[in-house]
Amino acid sequence: MSSFLPPDPAVERRIRELGENLFARMDASPAPGIFSKKGAYARVMEWSMRDPAFKTQLFRFVDVLPSLPSSAEIVRHLQEYLGDQAVELNPAMKAGLAASSFAPALIAGPVKRNVVAMAQQFVAGETPDDLVQQLRANARRGIATTIDLLGETVVSEAEADHFLQRNLAVLDTVSAALAREPAPASSDTGAGGVPLPRLNLSVKISALTPDVHPADPENSIAALKKRLRPILRRAHEVGAFINFDMESYKLKDLTLALFKSILEEEAFRAQPAIGIAIQAYLRDGERDLRELIAWARKQQRPIGVRLVKGAYWDYETVLARQRDWPIPVWSQKPASDANFEKLSVLLLENADLIAPAFATHNVRSVAHAIAQAERLGVEPRVYEFQALYGMADELKTALIQTGQRVREYCAIGELLPGMAYLVRRLLENTSNEGFLRQKNMGEATREQLLANPVDSLAQSKGESGKSKPLSDSPAPSAPPLSPSAFRNAPNTDFSQSAPRERQRAALASVSAALGRRHPLVIGGKRIADRAWIASTNPARPTQIIGHWARATITDADAAVAAARAAFPAWRATAADERATIIGRAADLMAARRFELNALEILEAGKPWIEADADISEAIDFCRYYAREMRQLDRPRVTQAVPGERCVQRWTPRGAGVVIAPWNFPLAILCGMTVAPVVAGNTVIMKPAEQTSVLASALMDIFVEAGVPAGVINLLTGFGEDVGAHLVAHPQLDFVAFTGSRSVGLKIWETAGRTLPGQANLKKVVCEMGGKNALIIDNDADLDEAIPATLYSAFGFSGQKCSALSRLIVLEHVHDEFVARLLAAAATLPIGDPALPGTVIGPVIDAVAQAKILGLIEQGKREAKVAWQATLPPAVGAGSGHFVPPTIFTQVKPEAAIAREEIFGPVLTVIKVRDLDEAIAVANATDYALTGGLFSRSPRALERVERELMVGNLYLNRGITGAIVERHPFGGFKLSGGGTKAGGRGYLENFLFPRAIAENVLRRGFTPPEAGVAVE
Amino acid sequence: MSSFLPPDPAVERRIRELGENLFARMDASPAPGIFSKKGAYARVMEWSMRDPAFKTQLFRFVDVLPSLPSSAEIVRHLQEYLGDQAVELNPAMKAGLAASSFAPALIAGPVKRNVVAMAQQFVAGETPDDLVQQLRANARRGIATTIDLLGETVVSEAEADHFLQRNLAVLDTVSAALAREPAPASSDTGAGGVPLPRLNLSVKISALTPDVHPADPENSIAALKKRLRPILRRAHEVGAFINFDMESYKLKDLTLALFKSILEEEAFRAQPAIGIAIQAYLRDGERDLRELIAWARKQQRPIGVRLVKGAYWDYETVLARQRDWPIPVWSQKPASDANFEKLSVLLLENADLIAPAFATHNVRSVAHAIAQAERLGVEPRVYEFQALYGMADELKTALIQTGQRVREYCAIGELLPGMAYLVRRLLENTSNEGFLRQKNMGEATREQLLANPVDSLAQSKGESGKSKPLSDSPAPSAPPLSPSAFRNAPNTDFSQSAPRERQRAALASVSAALGRRHPLVIGGKRIADRAWIASTNPARPTQIIGHWARATITDADAAVAAARAAFPAWRATAADERATIIGRAADLMAARRFELNALEILEAGKPWIEADADISEAIDFCRYYAREMRQLDRPRVTQAVPGERCVQRWTPRGAGVVIAPWNFPLAILCGMTVAPVVAGNTVIMKPAEQTSVLASALMDIFVEAGVPAGVINLLTGFGEDVGAHLVAHPQLDFVAFTGSRSVGLKIWETAGRTLPGQANLKKVVCEMGGKNALIIDNDADLDEAIPATLYSAFGFSGQKCSALSRLIVLEHVHDEFVARLLAAAATLPIGDPALPGTVIGPVIDAVAQAKILGLIEQGKREAKVAWQATLPPAVGAGSGHFVPPTIFTQVKPEAAIAREEIFGPVLTVIKVRDLDEAIAVANATDYALTGGLFSRSPRALERVERELMVGNLYLNRGITGAIVERHPFGGFKLSGGGTKAGGRGYLENFLFPRAIAENVLRRGFTPPEAGVAVE
Repeated sequence: MSSFLPPDPAVERRIRELGENLFARMDASPAPGIFSKKGAYARVMEWSMRDPAFKTQLFRFVDVLPSLPSSAEIVRHLQEYLGDQAVELNPAMKAGLAASSFAPALIAGPVKRNVVAMAQQFVAGETPDDLVQQLRANARRGIATTIDLLGETVVSEAEADHFLQRNLAVLDTVSAALAREPAPASSDTGAGGVPLPRLNLSVKISALTPDVHPADPENSIAALKKRLRPILRRAHEVGAFINFDMESYKLKDLTLALFKSILEEEAFRAQPAIGIAIQAYLRDGERDLRELIAWARKQQRPIGVRLVKGAYWDYETVLARQRDWPIPVWSQKPASDANFEKLSVLLLENADLIAPAFATHNVRSVAHAIAQAERLGVEPRVYEFQALYGMADELKTALIQTGQRVREYCAIGELLPGMAYLVRRLLENTSNEGFLRQKNMGEATREQLLANPVDSLAQSKGESGKSKPLSDSPAPSAPPLSPSAFRNAPNTDFSQSAPRERQRAALASVSAALGRRHPLVIGGKRIADRAWIASTNPARPTQIIGHWARATITDADAAVAAARAAFPAWRATAADERATIIGRAADLMAARRFELNALEILEAGKPWIEADADISEAIDFCRYYAREMRQLDRPRVTQAVPGERCVQRWTPRGAGVVIAPWNFPLAILCGMTVAPVVAGNTVIMKPAEQTSVLASALMDIFVEAGVPAGVINLLTGFGEDVGAHLVAHPQLDFVAFTGSRSVGLKIWETAGRTLPGQANLKKVVCEMGGKNALIIDNDADLDEAIPATLYSAFGFSGQKCSALSRLIVLEHVHDEFVARLLAAAATLPIGDPALPGTVIGPVIDAVAQAKILGLIEQGKREAKVAWQATLPPAVGAGSGHFVPPTIFTQVKPEAAIAREEIFGPVLTVIKVRDLDEAIAVANATDYALTGGLFSRSPRALERVERELMVGNLYLNRGITGAIVERHPFGGFKLSGGGTKAGGRGYLENFLFPRAIAENVLRRGFTPPEAGVAVE
Repeated sequence: MSSFLPPDPAVERRIRELGENLFARMDASPAPGIFSKKGAYARVMEWSMRDPAFKTQLFRFVDVLPSLPSSAEIVRHLQEYLGDQAVELNPAMKAGLAASSFAPALIAGPVKRNVVAMAQQFVAGETPDDLVQQLRANARRGIATTIDLLGETVVSEAEADHFLQRNLAVLDTVSAALAREPAPASSDTGAGGVPLPRLNLSVKISALTPDVHPADPENSIAALKKRLRPILRRAHEVGAFINFDMESYKLKDLTLALFKSILEEEAFRAQPAIGIAIQAYLRDGERDLRELIAWARKQQRPIGVRLVKGAYWDYETVLARQRDWPIPVWSQKPASDANFEKLSVLLLENADLIAPAFATHNVRSVAHAIAQAERLGVEPRVYEFQALYGMADELKTALIQTGQRVREYCAIGELLPGMAYLVRRLLENTSNEGFLRQKNMGEATREQLLANPVDSLAQSKGESGKSKPLSDSPAPSAPPLSPSAFRNAPNTDFSQSAPRERQRAALASVSAALGRRHPLVIGGKRIADRAWIASTNPARPTQIIGHWARATITDADAAVAAARAAFPAWRATAADERATIIGRAADLMAARRFELNALEILEAGKPWIEADADISEAIDFCRYYAREMRQLDRPRVTQAVPGERCVQRWTPRGAGVVIAPWNFPLAILCGMTVAPVVAGNTVIMKPAEQTSVLASALMDIFVEAGVPAGVINLLTGFGEDVGAHLVAHPQLDFVAFTGSRSVGLKIWETAGRTLPGQANLKKVVCEMGGKNALIIDNDADLDEAIPATLYSAFGFSGQKCSALSRLIVLEHVHDEFVARLLAAAATLPIGDPALPGTVIGPVIDAVAQAKILGLIEQGKREAKVAWQATLPPAVGAGSGHFVPPTIFTQVKPEAAIAREEIFGPVLTVIKVRDLDEAIAVANATDYALTGGLFSRSPRALERVERELMVGNLYLNRGITGAIVERHPFGGFKLSGGGTKAGGRGYLENFLFPRAIAENVLRRGFTPPEAGVAVE
């Protein structure tokens, strides 16, 4: 606990005095509000606090409500959400819900009005005029104001421009209005009677540009500054104070860097008055604040710091756990409180330069700040408290009464973009651990409410309480959900500078060592006297990655012989040892991650995060299949029978060939290889020609990991000759293939023929293409649907079998959605994938480029090109295999571009009447690989879950990026044989089951477990 | 408890007095014995009682010991058994075991001597001379004797003849010796001084013939009488008393019937003196005894009854549980004791005609009999006590001292056949619940040892205690091992007369209604205007079973259209409802079991129990797949991820064709149909031509169960035209096939071709032939191996893909084993399968008959015909498709008859040097279906479990008769695709997996399970 502030008895006594005083004053002037138990929604909120399922469904309904165009839709959604069987309803609610079908208009009106009323609790108004009213009202109560413009997500330059204009307009309008306003609020006067800027504007940084890429801070900061400068200039002109809001963790470093960087620009070294938020719930909080103070001292720049606890705890925790990244926030609520107190002291100690603003509704936190200020001799007017509009009004009044400065954070804007804000406020008010709920619902005593959070921590013994900065003492990753749970290899967090620099360095060192020769590996022997084929960088075809040996038919036969020869000993090797060797290969890949990333970026033209995810997946395949094999190796009792031991075990199939594609050049090749190998089979790897150098690196890793000679053989070569020869080979027992439909069908057919001398029916694990659809429902959350659509369609230039190809949009939302989508598409960074900000790189080779361009031409005859990127000069003029990303609208479902797999950055948009038609269109394809739906209708989600015929269905998220174990991957129809890579059961494709029944009854007696004899 | 004797205080008091008196006398004359703590084996026995694993391994070692030919083999087995890691050894044993490798001869000798010494404890000698010595010694102690000849299993007429001769010889030798013996034992004098027969011989009925078939009591009794009559005649001549021993439950009714039947023969109405054992541990005991007494009264025939508790409790319990038959024995030890007391009273009440012999070592049981005799006024010389040689000698002495008659049961014979007897005695002495152990190890007080068993039952509350006869109140079947466990449908127990009569009646009624016409069923419509093809009885080809409609190609296309049309609605039908419908089909089959059995006996030529097992399997498939589908229908969480719901679900493939064989005409057709159907697919059934009438009956059941029109279609027709057409049909998604290798490979190839318009890669579930091997190790238990071999090879005339075809016998045991095998083979009953005793019936048709006969001719050129049955006149002369079962020896592994599937009653025997060669020969085949090993070497069993490459491996049992869930069935290599019918995972062949990932994070908040927000 020592890292937080050690409790100081004098301070604690003073906090108690101050707190009791504040509580007494608050009791004297209770303001109406969410906890008033009046208001129509009060009962609903109370119910929410009793039934978490109701709360979830209610808030989800609130979230979707503004997008619903009719009473019928409102009632339908209300019924779908609250009719969920997990939800408890009281009899009145039940009756109301049941009645709503009969009179939608009668119900929908009041429901909407109630939600609007709820929103009005927290949103000060819609227009700058509303705001001026509020400023005036606040001033009368002595309260200063900071303004927040609702509207959080911008997906296009136009939307960012609009946000900029709104900020500028507020600065203009409000400053003009304030000029006519004679009396400032008492809180607008600082220490020594110095007037503070009466116009105080909080700015959401993420809304300044659609073009934020945490992995590419340089360009992101440049883009942000373009819109930030006019705001700062205008603020300077009108004498306003600008505060940088702090949002999600992934933008935090970027926001801090932007803040420092722009204030170092000549124009802003001294003006305007400016501040930034620091989140105490972050483990990084102290380090960031210390660095910020040091920077300000060096710059001699007075700044404000708004200390908040942080509003995204759930989100940050969930995201970090999903990615197995260190959890950036304290895991226990009292740790955030304790950190808030520590940072409060830090701010007060630096109050000569830093203007502290304590943004909290927690009376303990408030009293602590005052007590520490007293102890440090910081006078009250030097710092201020901030609280949200519509919340904790009693506290604001009490603070004003005791001579403190108070500023209210007033959000203004429309209901629709404001819903996220409303939901956050509702969560805050109803959170189990929240101060407001605990106080107002009487769930904690005043004693408890004023207790030192460090003491609570000591009692709970949960959190280590170390407040050391993250870099010194890494925060723990989330504990696995069960001790035996499989853990995916975490992707690299390129929003952190250290891994970014390592990746840059690896790119440099790998680039410097290109051009080597990569021999065949057959039975442990390296065969180098073959024709050498160059592998080149798709972004810069003149750059040779390396040369690979071209295998001959004789080599293929030799590889078969080697694999067959190695089989008996490998089969006899204990499963645990095989798993250990494959686990070692995973460890080697993890150790060489940045080098492998670099090689893949260069040879496959993959953007950083895509290459990085491919390496993670390769590692995952090794570890997951190794773990699965250890489990499969334990004989499973088929039926508990007395007197007979009945078990099922597995035995490997034999030797096989793995034919892999270039688009996930490490993961798919590795996964299709290690699955059979860990299961005891031997394998010939036939990698894609385009990524044979990376395959050679993988082979080296297998050798180094201790895979015996002949168990894995590397046969670089051409599919048409050695590939086809191996598929037909009677001495191979299986083929694992991922690639095109035409080759897949040919393999399927070839394998059907059982040749003389063949030991087994040939097994084919076959994964082919896709023509994947995403449905956008009328009530979809477009802010989420748009980036998900773009990334699904254009990530790695659409060269994924999972890529989105057919966007099916319901009529009502079609035009709005498509307009925003097209505008957003224009922000996609196209370029050399070696640059960290690139989202769209080249396609794999000239053949692919020509084919895709041809399909685009064909598409122009069938549909309307709604958008096509202009290639940036850097790549447009070069020899790289770039294809401009293209979106077709007005596409008929039966058009060729809506039916044939393109495997490039081309998206078709199909407008449909309703969900029935959407599902019908989505299913009307030869393929069944991935698909998805964005909707906020529980019934629509359920229906699509049942009816959309795809192997991998994604709901309310992008449709690519399957993760091992989590999203077993593979499809059916002409997308594949229904196998699931990275899923339970995949290994069984490479095994034969054997059932064993042993009679254990001898002379009428059985082993002890089966019973005992009687006399 | 009321059904057992109600406790009588006066009797209880007297029992206590008598018991204390006996105990006091026993203490005064302790005899050396197993509990003496002297003897070298005493320590070993003590260890056995402490460690059940040691006990099991020790007794198994004792069991195999006599078959081991060398010191090296003895030491190897000792190490294998006692080196098992489950076994605890004390340090001395460990050291001895470790040392044994270095000096096998030094260790093996003492080990063997100790076991022999142990055996000598219980076996009175090897020869009649030994016996006479013992008789004399007994007589000196006042003890009478009954003689038992060891040697329990006879597999051939020769062995039965030998047993008969031994019995006759004993009667002669001993009677002659006794004639020279002046003084009878005091126990040889009955009430009123009447001398009793001094020569008393116990006869094991099962050893009188190899030809006992409980399902065919008439013929079995006739066979038994052939050798029983000479014994009875000789007994009469020499004045001996003959006692029928009672063995396993399945022979009990037969033994009682034999007893009554032979005594009703004129020659034996009055002579010889005779008795029979009644087992009190059977729930049937009271009913049997009452019937026996009633019969004796009616016949006015004095008889003896030896009341025993029963020595096969473990075996009977295990067997009944394996078969899910009512457990014939009381489940709790005190219930057997209580029943013994009740039957004791019954005997004493009828002592005017029935001479009671109480065979027990339990002092309470003894004292109870005496007390009840006193109460009933039955004088002591009217009844006698019996006890085993080598056990309870103190009790014998005490009883003689108190004026009771005592008879000792003396086993004589060789060590080898005596081992089963020895092991039973060891188990008896070491059983936790046994009186001897409890008394002699001091595990119970005298109070407890003399307590009324009814009181113990009341305390334990376990057993219902009802002693009503089994037929009035059926005994409970074994409880399932877990409440949710799958329960196989029990086969019919044809050793019971009621089901036998039902089967006879069903055969009569079905035979009377043959010859009907069976139309196609397509989309719910019955199509009858097609060519009619007759189906005939293979045993009597002139008998027409029925006529089936021959489908045309147009019909096949119509069936495809019907299956496709029915698919969407059936897929959308809830899995639970589909499962309910299929469950209903199972219930209908169970209700019509005897009719279906009859139809199968007539149409497929299957013997009763084979047909009956086929119906059970069909029922099991329905219920098992229904249960599996209900489980698969629950979405499975792939990975627990906060903020994302990740599950895997399944969706059916579409429509398919099922092509079934005639050899399991109901089970395989039904299983291959209901698996896809319950999974939501639709199906066209193409049954084998030979058994299309039975298929039509199955179709009727599906319709009656509520399978909607079009979901299952019946297309009787010829494989060459409609079968081939359907396999190639682009609108079918899967083929489920079981049949010949040539057709299977053709289907596999055809399905490889993906035609235009085809929705999915065509899935083939393909089960083909076998050439199955069974290895006989040198230390195999030949008594078990011989019947298992014969049934595996010749059951249903070898017409099973699982049938044994290659018997691989290790050199050392080869000649002995083969000689016994050939002799045993000659006892196999060949005939019309409609007769209940038939084991070998006809083959399916004239084509098969000609083909098999041809292969036998070919075999004659490659190997030696060691045995070929002569067809009995009844079938040899008829037109039935009979083939004489044939055994070839001196077969080379590479001979055609050792490589090609024969599918008929032909067995090849291959001699090999050792286990290495045995495994190599077993694996050197195109097939990998079933296989097995008989061995008593733990290491050999382990090795074969790892190395014998078959889908279904059977250890120390027959290699046919897979049971659903227990033995998932199917092979690999050219036996099949590695699928497992009746196993977990089979349904997945007819399903596609779908992975669903739903982002449940909305506006940064997650459902309650994922965590809570902080303030």
